[in-house]
Amino acid sequence: MSHNIAVIPGDGIGVEVMPEGVRALEAAARRFDLDFKFTDIDFASCDYFERHGKMMPDDWRDRLGGMDALFFGAVGMPERVPDHISLWGSLLQFRRAFDQYVNLRPCRLMPGIKSPLAGRAPGDIDFYVVRENTEGEYSSVGGRMFEGTDREVVIQDTVMTRTGIDRVLKFAFELAKTRPRQKLTSATKSNGISITMPYWDERVLEMAKSYPDISVDKFHIDILTANFVLHPDWFDVVVASNLFGDILSDLGPACTGTIGVAPSANINPEGHFPSLFEPVHGSAPDIFGRGIANPIGQIWSAAMMLEHLGHIDAGKAVVDAIERVLAAGPSDAPLTPDLGGRGTTSELGETIAEAIKTG
Amino acid sequence: MSHNIAVIPGDGIGVEVMPEGVRALEAAARRFDLDFKFTDIDFASCDYFERHGKMMPDDWRDRLGGMDALFFGAVGMPERVPDHISLWGSLLQFRRAFDQYVNLRPCRLMPGIKSPLAGRAPGDIDFYVVRENTEGEYSSVGGRMFEGTDREVVIQDTVMTRTGIDRVLKFAFELAKTRPRQKLTSATKSNGISITMPYWDERVLEMAKSYPDISVDKFHIDILTANFVLHPDWFDVVVASNLFGDILSDLGPACTGTIGVAPSANINPEGHFPSLFEPVHGSAPDIFGRGIANPIGQIWSAAMMLEHLGHIDAGKAVVDAIERVLAAGPSDAPLTPDLGGRGTTSELGETIAEAIKTG
Ligand SMILES: CC(C)[C@H](C(=O)O)[C@@H](O)C(=O)O
Ligand SMILES: CC(C)[C@H](C(=O)O)[C@@H](O)C(=O)O
Repeated sequence: MSHNIAVIPGDGIGVEVMPEGVRALEAAARRFDLDFKFTDIDFASCDYFERHGKMMPDDWRDRLGGMDALFFGAVGMPERVPDHISLWGSLLQFRRAFDQYVNLRPCRLMPGIKSPLAGRAPGDIDFYVVRENTEGEYSSVGGRMFEGTDREVVIQDTVMTRTGIDRVLKFAFELAKTRPRQKLTSATKSNGISITMPYWDERVLEMAKSYPDISVDKFHIDILTANFVLHPDWFDVVVASNLFGDILSDLGPACTGTIGVAPSANINPEGHFPSLFEPVHGSAPDIFGRGIANPIGQIWSAAMMLEHLGHIDAGKAVVDAIERVLAAGPSDAPLTPDLGGRGTTSELGETIAEAIKTG
Repeated sequence: MSHNIAVIPGDGIGVEVMPEGVRALEAAARRFDLDFKFTDIDFASCDYFERHGKMMPDDWRDRLGGMDALFFGAVGMPERVPDHISLWGSLLQFRRAFDQYVNLRPCRLMPGIKSPLAGRAPGDIDFYVVRENTEGEYSSVGGRMFEGTDREVVIQDTVMTRTGIDRVLKFAFELAKTRPRQKLTSATKSNGISITMPYWDERVLEMAKSYPDISVDKFHIDILTANFVLHPDWFDVVVASNLFGDILSDLGPACTGTIGVAPSANINPEGHFPSLFEPVHGSAPDIFGRGIANPIGQIWSAAMMLEHLGHIDAGKAVVDAIERVLAAGPSDAPLTPDLGGRGTTSELGETIAEAIKTG
């Protein structure tokens, strides 16, 4: 079975970690007898923007829409292109145009990684953030008035729909059903954000009726972030709006030691459009060019892509390889500086690829 | 000099910790020869709501507007009154009607308290969150359409004004000037929230021109929450919108061990209206009624009130008393269970009041 994969490195360390993601896929393909056709994409990058005055060619939908999956690095070089232009011109377009309404982000404390939280060991932190990925606070409705005067005002609408909320809740409840603890936590802020978030709460209550075996709780986002730090062991599946999910899926991985290893899947569950797989970290202009970026977020994203394409064993083999290399520790594996080692991006990528091949 | 103080305990543990806050004020009054006239307020509580069908009497503005300060506990009993009704009917009214546009929240790791972050000791975490407190994401503009149908949609506007942003930024920059590190961090999300947050960034850049000695950086809220956990020592003064400030001022105190001790000041800097002082924690229905709530957040808020009223020495004496009692530890002081002790709310409150008197 052959898969067409668009390879979209983007900017900054996206360009550095992407080859290691591809290397991991090739290693998995060799071992599990899979066939990938990679198409290199140079748009969705600030380089492209500087050459063409836009982030993507007009026919980007046609060029990507037929792919089996999009393998994405990171976008953004704020010194050169304002972030809202580069991101709304690329990644955020993909999520919407390809209706990738679930952003799935595992937060798991891996062997060999030290949590910044005192006394937490692998097994103590192991949950998923399920983030709504197409609407909510990330909206294109609003504007500015009285520009340049003292009464200047900017307005941006948060827009939530029953369809949009229900489908992501359904995904989250279904995921909770597959987990040992059968537990779902909803992120809200209905005490302060008094129009949209009470509606979110209502839909959670309604959906919960169809899942009587799942135990459901909710926290306001402020105390929820506090509880990620104080009680990360409380969580199993956390479902959240676009913005709250964005926050929780950086904070969660930080609690597991580094956001450098965290993966994510932007999923169109119906398969009408390609899904997109990318590390949680950004383009990190501050460390770009030094060859020390951690490629594990990209490689773990490859594992999520393999699972999504139906190659469960191959996906597990990649995660397994990551775990073995991490467990070896900085003295025996070329871990990158963020993991306490002195390895380079490609040394670590090669080591993991070897581990995938040998199994 | 005499001060009229409105005492508004509210709900839940607000009712339990408030007497300890008042006790601390009385102790400080005795030692520093101050005179407080306390007026007990029974509205702004769910009890009041159940008796009157509203959170406050119609003349609440008149009854509170002439006070020198409002001393507030916590509001909310979600089992009895939906949070958005109880909060928008009380606390959020105060903040707006009395134009308390700065919400100032210190995050400091206190002696004797164990941070959940590995290897952090007092001195490692010591910063302020300055939160915009009247506009932004906490808006009353929006609504619901197509109710009860599949195309149901809810919309809520985030509204930011130049006036609103600039005045809180000014407060934050002025605060940064008084701090040893002369550093200000702005919380943004201009890559995703593409209309309001780029405007926030612009105003920060503009205001920074008037403060050439302050070093300014910014982080998107997602990675900022990660950095609170990974690098809490990076921060000095963090300025944020209403929602982001809400999140950061729960997460910051969590990183310092417990939100049970964190205080806040809702300030109208011009003094046209009374300012409001309240613990960061909420009404905590889950532990209400057991007499074990930590009163330190309320007592530390009393210290902020004393400073605000011009009694700097008295404020410092209260913080100093808190620190000494905490440093004594659970074996020598009746610390509450959240601090690893077996003391009750009133035992801990009495001990701190004694420490204030003896100095
Ligand atoms: C109770 C709630 C409305 C309030 C807020 O969100 O402002 C609280 O969380 C706070 O931080 O003071
Ligand atoms: C880069 C940015 C627009 C993006 C987001 O906010 O969604 C990122 O933080 C993420 O989490 O994927």
